[in-house]
Amino acid sequence: MALFDLPIERLRSYRPERDEPADFDAFWSRTLAEAGEFDLAATFTPYDLPLAAVDVYDVSFAGWGGHRVNGWFLTPRGADRPLPCVMHYIGYSGGRGFPHDHLLWPAAGYAVFVMETRGHGGASPQHPGVTGDPHGGDHAQAPGMMTRGILDPETYYYRRVFTDAVRAVDAAAAHPAVDAARIVVSGGSQGGGIAQATAALRPSVKGALIDVPFLTDFRRAVEITDRDPYQEIVRFLASRRDGAERVFATLAYFDGLNFAARGRVPALYSVALMDDVCPPSTVFGAYNHWQGPKEITVWPWNGHEGGAGFQREKQLRHLRELLADG
Amino acid sequence: MALFDLPIERLRSYRPERDEPADFDAFWSRTLAEAGEFDLAATFTPYDLPLAAVDVYDVSFAGWGGHRVNGWFLTPRGADRPLPCVMHYIGYSGGRGFPHDHLLWPAAGYAVFVMETRGHGGASPQHPGVTGDPHGGDHAQAPGMMTRGILDPETYYYRRVFTDAVRAVDAAAAHPAVDAARIVVSGGSQGGGIAQATAALRPSVKGALIDVPFLTDFRRAVEITDRDPYQEIVRFLASRRDGAERVFATLAYFDGLNFAARGRVPALYSVALMDDVCPPSTVFGAYNHWQGPKEITVWPWNGHEGGAGFQREKQLRHLRELLADG
Amino acid sequence: MALFDLPIERLRSYRPERDEPADFDAFWSRTLAEAGEFDLAATFTPYDLPLAAVDVYDVSFAGWGGHRVNGWFLTPRGADRPLPCVMHYIGYSGGRGFPHDHLLWPAAGYAVFVMETRGHGGASPQHPGVTGDPHGGDHAQAPGMMTRGILDPETYYYRRVFTDAVRAVDAAAAHPAVDAARIVVSGGSQGGGIAQATAALRPSVKGALIDVPFLTDFRRAVEITDRDPYQEIVRFLASRRDGAERVFATLAYFDGLNFAARGRVPALYSVALMDDVCPPSTVFGAYNHWQGPKEITVWPWNGHEGGAGFQREKQLRHLRELLADG
Amino acid sequence: MALFDLPIERLRSYRPERDEPADFDAFWSRTLAEAGEFDLAATFTPYDLPLAAVDVYDVSFAGWGGHRVNGWFLTPRGADRPLPCVMHYIGYSGGRGFPHDHLLWPAAGYAVFVMETRGHGGASPQHPGVTGDPHGGDHAQAPGMMTRGILDPETYYYRRVFTDAVRAVDAAAAHPAVDAARIVVSGGSQGGGIAQATAALRPSVKGALIDVPFLTDFRRAVEITDRDPYQEIVRFLASRRDGAERVFATLAYFDGLNFAARGRVPALYSVALMDDVCPPSTVFGAYNHWQGPKEITVWPWNGHEGGAGFQREKQLRHLRELLADG
Amino acid sequence: MALFDLPIERLRSYRPERDEPADFDAFWSRTLAEAGEFDLAATFTPYDLPLAAVDVYDVSFAGWGGHRVNGWFLTPRGADRPLPCVMHYIGYSGGRGFPHDHLLWPAAGYAVFVMETRGHGGASPQHPGVTGDPHGGDHAQAPGMMTRGILDPETYYYRRVFTDAVRAVDAAAAHPAVDAARIVVSGGSQGGGIAQATAALRPSVKGALIDVPFLTDFRRAVEITDRDPYQEIVRFLASRRDGAERVFATLAYFDGLNFAARGRVPALYSVALMDDVCPPSTVFGAYNHWQGPKEITVWPWNGHEGGAGFQREKQLRHLRELLADG
Amino acid sequence: MALFDLPIERLRSYRPERDEPADFDAFWSRTLAEAGEFDLAATFTPYDLPLAAVDVYDVSFAGWGGHRVNGWFLTPRGADRPLPCVMHYIGYSGGRGFPHDHLLWPAAGYAVFVMETRGHGGASPQHPGVTGDPHGGDHAQAPGMMTRGILDPETYYYRRVFTDAVRAVDAAAAHPAVDAARIVVSGGSQGGGIAQATAALRPSVKGALIDVPFLTDFRRAVEITDRDPYQEIVRFLASRRDGAERVFATLAYFDGLNFAARGRVPALYSVALMDDVCPPSTVFGAYNHWQGPKEITVWPWNGHEGGAGFQREKQLRHLRELLADG
Repeated sequence: MALFDLPIERLRSYRPERDEPADFDAFWSRTLAEAGEFDLAATFTPYDLPLAAVDVYDVSFAGWGGHRVNGWFLTPRGADRPLPCVMHYIGYSGGRGFPHDHLLWPAAGYAVFVMETRGHGGASPQHPGVTGDPHGGDHAQAPGMMTRGILDPETYYYRRVFTDAVRAVDAAAAHPAVDAARIVVSGGSQGGGIAQATAALRPSVKGALIDVPFLTDFRRAVEITDRDPYQEIVRFLASRRDGAERVFATLAYFDGLNFAARGRVPALYSVALMDDVCPPSTVFGAYNHWQGPKEITVWPWNGHEGGAGFQREKQLRHLRELLADG
Repeated sequence: MALFDLPIERLRSYRPERDEPADFDAFWSRTLAEAGEFDLAATFTPYDLPLAAVDVYDVSFAGWGGHRVNGWFLTPRGADRPLPCVMHYIGYSGGRGFPHDHLLWPAAGYAVFVMETRGHGGASPQHPGVTGDPHGGDHAQAPGMMTRGILDPETYYYRRVFTDAVRAVDAAAAHPAVDAARIVVSGGSQGGGIAQATAALRPSVKGALIDVPFLTDFRRAVEITDRDPYQEIVRFLASRRDGAERVFATLAYFDGLNFAARGRVPALYSVALMDDVCPPSTVFGAYNHWQGPKEITVWPWNGHEGGAGFQREKQLRHLRELLADG
Repeated sequence: MALFDLPIERLRSYRPERDEPADFDAFWSRTLAEAGEFDLAATFTPYDLPLAAVDVYDVSFAGWGGHRVNGWFLTPRGADRPLPCVMHYIGYSGGRGFPHDHLLWPAAGYAVFVMETRGHGGASPQHPGVTGDPHGGDHAQAPGMMTRGILDPETYYYRRVFTDAVRAVDAAAAHPAVDAARIVVSGGSQGGGIAQATAALRPSVKGALIDVPFLTDFRRAVEITDRDPYQEIVRFLASRRDGAERVFATLAYFDGLNFAARGRVPALYSVALMDDVCPPSTVFGAYNHWQGPKEITVWPWNGHEGGAGFQREKQLRHLRELLADG
Repeated sequence: MALFDLPIERLRSYRPERDEPADFDAFWSRTLAEAGEFDLAATFTPYDLPLAAVDVYDVSFAGWGGHRVNGWFLTPRGADRPLPCVMHYIGYSGGRGFPHDHLLWPAAGYAVFVMETRGHGGASPQHPGVTGDPHGGDHAQAPGMMTRGILDPETYYYRRVFTDAVRAVDAAAAHPAVDAARIVVSGGSQGGGIAQATAALRPSVKGALIDVPFLTDFRRAVEITDRDPYQEIVRFLASRRDGAERVFATLAYFDGLNFAARGRVPALYSVALMDDVCPPSTVFGAYNHWQGPKEITVWPWNGHEGGAGFQREKQLRHLRELLADG
Repeated sequence: MALFDLPIERLRSYRPERDEPADFDAFWSRTLAEAGEFDLAATFTPYDLPLAAVDVYDVSFAGWGGHRVNGWFLTPRGADRPLPCVMHYIGYSGGRGFPHDHLLWPAAGYAVFVMETRGHGGASPQHPGVTGDPHGGDHAQAPGMMTRGILDPETYYYRRVFTDAVRAVDAAAAHPAVDAARIVVSGGSQGGGIAQATAALRPSVKGALIDVPFLTDFRRAVEITDRDPYQEIVRFLASRRDGAERVFATLAYFDGLNFAARGRVPALYSVALMDDVCPPSTVFGAYNHWQGPKEITVWPWNGHEGGAGFQREKQLRHLRELLADG
Repeated sequence: MALFDLPIERLRSYRPERDEPADFDAFWSRTLAEAGEFDLAATFTPYDLPLAAVDVYDVSFAGWGGHRVNGWFLTPRGADRPLPCVMHYIGYSGGRGFPHDHLLWPAAGYAVFVMETRGHGGASPQHPGVTGDPHGGDHAQAPGMMTRGILDPETYYYRRVFTDAVRAVDAAAAHPAVDAARIVVSGGSQGGGIAQATAALRPSVKGALIDVPFLTDFRRAVEITDRDPYQEIVRFLASRRDGAERVFATLAYFDGLNFAARGRVPALYSVALMDDVCPPSTVFGAYNHWQGPKEITVWPWNGHEGGAGFQREKQLRHLRELLADG
């Protein structure tokens, strides 16, 4: 990959205009309130694996619209008091995978709550998913999830996903093994975008780990990268000729720039300079708007894999400090 | 494209075993009966185009589940009595496009009723669609429509589509400009598969034009072609490891082989020997099971484009005879 | 497709220098005069199709060098006086296709005259062609038609094509079913380039419909797009090392910029901002040079498909006004 | 992926001829004996990660030729007696990655010893490696490791790798935290091929987990798949015209078929029927030659990802039985 | 490349049916006789290069229809008597390139006469060509030369090429530096097909060097390979639906099988078993029909590059014997 | 290829900053001195080919570390005094090929000494190689040679290659058929980079022919091109996260910019403006730093093939003047 975005010197201070609807906060308050009318009804079913060190639960809870959302919940075996918990959101197209894909945080002494992104994971042999999105579309859409219901913020796919994500925090917080005051949201790519939004929508979380976040500065993204999934939006607009105004009006309610501008908890970001899936300017755009304590790791020679396991090690050390109890 | 399927000599007599559920007919009777509880509520809204020769209507009717399904209805202007009508079903990923894409049958003196395939057409700049599929999925699926709800015949996407298609026939038959005794179903690829099914499910139609049909002999198709959309099924099965039995049990209710074995109206098929999207053996498999009068045009040097406009000319001549009013 | 050309604000006023040979007009006057020595010898052979609404003719006339050029001529059946006629020129690599591909203008009440681009259409299964280019090449060329005879304006392929196009107008004008005062030229891509040139060379036409025109601002085009057919020129120059000066000297006689600067009839252009086949700056370059009444439709999210059927609807409305009699 | 190899019915009993050098066992005895002259000099350096549940060591030992080979060694924290240990060998092109990539076996209560494949992992951003192969090539080779030194069994790359793998077992066995009687070799693809060879060369191991093994039935593999890394051999032979006899003579000393025929410990294999990297017939060929207790999991709809995490769960259960103490 | 054609054991004896027109010989006699009415008018213009060892001439002669065909003629400097001459025909899409591309045969003590294939070489930066094919097409064709005039043997492109090739032999034979009794035809791919035909049409040549010949067993070739240039024919037939019978009737006059069956001079063939451009069965088909003394080199691991320089060395040794004077 | 680098006007004067280690000259003096402790031990084994005009020798000499490096040496037969000699270095991935690939300079009256680039040529069917690089890697590397030993200038692959190249000059100079005062270094791409370095390291050479040189301005190259082999470095850095500083510190000892700044002999460069393998700004960067007499040929429409045979003709004429004796 050659460099294709702004040079790092400019990225450091790049802080784009945000397109924020006047009723942004009202929209989300109402959305979460409506969802709150459904009982969480979280279930944690023990999942039989011959693992000595962790307890594994097959999780399900009522997300947006009361729809069942699946995931995994793992805790280190034998803890004698509530533990910090890492919320893990998944990247585009992946499912929750297997419990043993998520052993990192338990090994570090934390619980982990993995939430599936509804509808994803059906063509992901290494990280399969199960959760459906029972809410179909009221208009034709491009394949993939980016444009499902995109003509109206009320019906847009990510309204359901972000709501699921907030409620997953609630489900985790209510679990007796979890110390509700020490929940951290995390994820990479789509998962990073969800974590970013959730940190803004549920400011009680303790921190956020946001890697190469997707769903951020849509307007710029669709103009500077040829890659999916941002290009799903372009294909939709190429077909739906009269849709651009409505589409961008919808996306303004879901843009990571607007969530970042509401982020007040400590955030550890990462960005890759050769990332043509989530271009670095879109990541720095959000980072530079973030209001809370923050730090960003720059991977100059990487693409969308970003910091990969190196970033995990940074996060381990970051959380050791952040979550140290009293 | 090199030849990759059976040689033409063997195709002529290739008649594969069918996997037919015992309650195949009951399933469809019940399905159509349930749908019949929704009023068709067909609307034909005049669409303003400066065309002198045809009347154009933006069509909508209540398909499966009462969901609105869109389409076009065009009639030659100035007819003094009810006309034959060609039902036109659309290929995978396309929408209804524009009224002027469908001028052929009106120019021949017939009405044409174009039905959208719900959910398709959202990334199709030349043939955009509008109809959504409000029925989402109760499990994760591969992108595209092939695997939506595929774990159960009740929820499978094509249950809704085939039902829509039958009801579209009903909507056309009820229109005063249409001679209900002279309705012909037609389509290519997915559209051909829909026409094939509809001819079996609504045997009152007068004939069927079935080009390079998709949705036929799924089992063989997924094993001999690397191409989408059949491969959407393989990607799903690669992810959903325990799903194969349920998937093929579902598909048996939707397999063109089983519909063809119930086809009794005159059918004009076409097939292309270098078609790696809908392999020729899957087409001949259905054709050789068809029970009614039949004819097949073989295009030896073509891929999935099949007979293209040449086949249209054949169809014009075929319909001139078939639809001649006595 | 990401954006890759100038931003729309700059395109609006982008008006490049033109490289115009001193004898540009003389060259074309002479060329057309020489061609004029061949009798047009247009033949309109009825083509048997069971279409009730239109009369179809298989057309042939003597183009450049007296070579036979083929096409279709369709008229609405039963007109009682001469009708407006739309000249339709074809895009690169396509042939005339089938009569029923051209039902739009007859449905609108106009005649349509479809002219093949000589030599094209031999590998176009959906839009086959028949017309050859009996004038071979006096030097080696890149495959395709872009560089045939390109070392000299006298022998360049498009000298023959543009001449054919002008003579096609003459053939249409002479047909009794056509109102010679109401002929409009049209086309997309290569067809748009031909229409653009023809409107300049036969200023008696009533208007021009020019979609995403090719053959325009060759110099810029070969430097900013990697796509064929413009890249055929680059491949030729990569091989013919001493040819650039001669090639661009030739192309100056065929550049849409120079024809646009002579365009005086009303023109309806269209352009797509993500079109990497005919980049938007080359289209705006011509449009901004056009001398007559003009309008341009900008498709911001589309590639070379441009406005597709949406643009057809605009054209229908545009022609309704332009061609209104009385 | 379409099916391309033998049908599953034939695979079940497919047992190809083996090409075995007369001195196969002597070659390996001598090779291991020579390597044995270098002290293992295994070092286990604690690696600082804030993980509560495991102890992590950065491992290094003297492999073939005394070259340092790197890896990871992880043990569940707080074990009060020696534990079973899983040897994990890596797939082609990957390095050892990060300690936290290998938490599965510690979570199950076992130690894990991860050995790098020398020279790999230098272009693997998600699973980086560090170990070099100080033994360069005495002849030109195709890029990649498949053909390094391939003209002579003495200098072939995998002579060094298999020796490293055996010595890694020795290094693990000598570690006080490991119960030397309960060591299991494992790996997928190249790692599966190494595990297969190691089980034959160090028959004291307790069992083998062999997933979609590479390096098996080279002769058939190079003729039925177009994919790397087997095709590295073809590219080499296309260049080295006189090399085929020597190359296959060399490969006979490294062919998984010959190791499988010496396998006597319990083996759990897996194979994928749409795997065009390690075609299923090459896997079944080895499996059907395996002499010990054995079981194979067939993944009918998967490619080279094989069973992925599903196979991990099977292995967990398999080892629970196999490694149960007393 | 995996193996895809018949196994070598079957190839050795594979001798397909030939489709030979009754007037095959008459057609070619007449063709050559008609061409013979044009004076050869060969010119050999000294080409100024500072080469001490060879004399270089820019060659031109009147080929089919009297059209000028270009090439190079090189002789070792200072020969004191007429020398053997190697005719070199060029592969598809290439031109004559540079004089210094052809130093092999002069270095061996022979003259070399390089003939361009008319129309090729216009997009070949490393081997540019200059010769045009002034005979255009009387019907639309697929891009490339394979289908130019293919509807009739009289107008087919290779009628002109093969005639050029025979006349090139005549031009060489008439040159005072050449020993007309010791002329050998040679070439690879298209050049091999031309050499094969020329050896049959001008049986006075002394021998033939035929590498991976193209233009041989068209019927089989188009069915078993996906690669160009054979696929140009398929693309044409996909477009020209009624053309297959005429196309294959034409090709029968140009099929290498029929020329091979007339080959009586010593021939050295080569073939590559992984060649998907000119599949090995088509080469063996011709070789097994060849009537004269013959030998074939089989390259088991190569694609269309065949024996490359290795085959050149074989040819050097072969010619040393064949052309030894005495 | 579209233009992607600086415009030609800016390239003419583009002279980037150089990153030069303080001990650059000392590093190379020491390196060559160390290598000098190995006897050259050049052998010239006659190679039997039936070529009348040249004598061919299979060459081998002791390069860096005393490793045997292979090549060809060809002289015009029958010279009566020592001749000028052209050193020919090979492009990336190629081997020495065949003696008859190198007939140009002998035909011009010069000897030619072809040196293989160690390790290359093992997957190059048309230009096979034999020389290995016995110096393996002390760390994991990306496939290919670009990153072998790249973490330290002492172990970097090109330290050995450039040393080989200088010693090849010495081997040629010592041959009795060569006039040591008239040796010219030459090559394209990697060969151009080697020639450029060698001219600086062995300033006794008479001149340099440097075509589209690789290994020049690494820092810029890796940022503006997506193409291999420069991208091998990026893939390595993407994996070796902590390596960038060391990698660029190493590369500074091998950067063509630094060698060019030491070039004092007459140099004939060539560059192609659409070359995305060795971007034109990296070539002009070196050219504009070259200290000696110089000339550059610009190929505006070519990619990495650059001037191809055209450049050879220029070089022939250039050398005729440069090497004229007396």
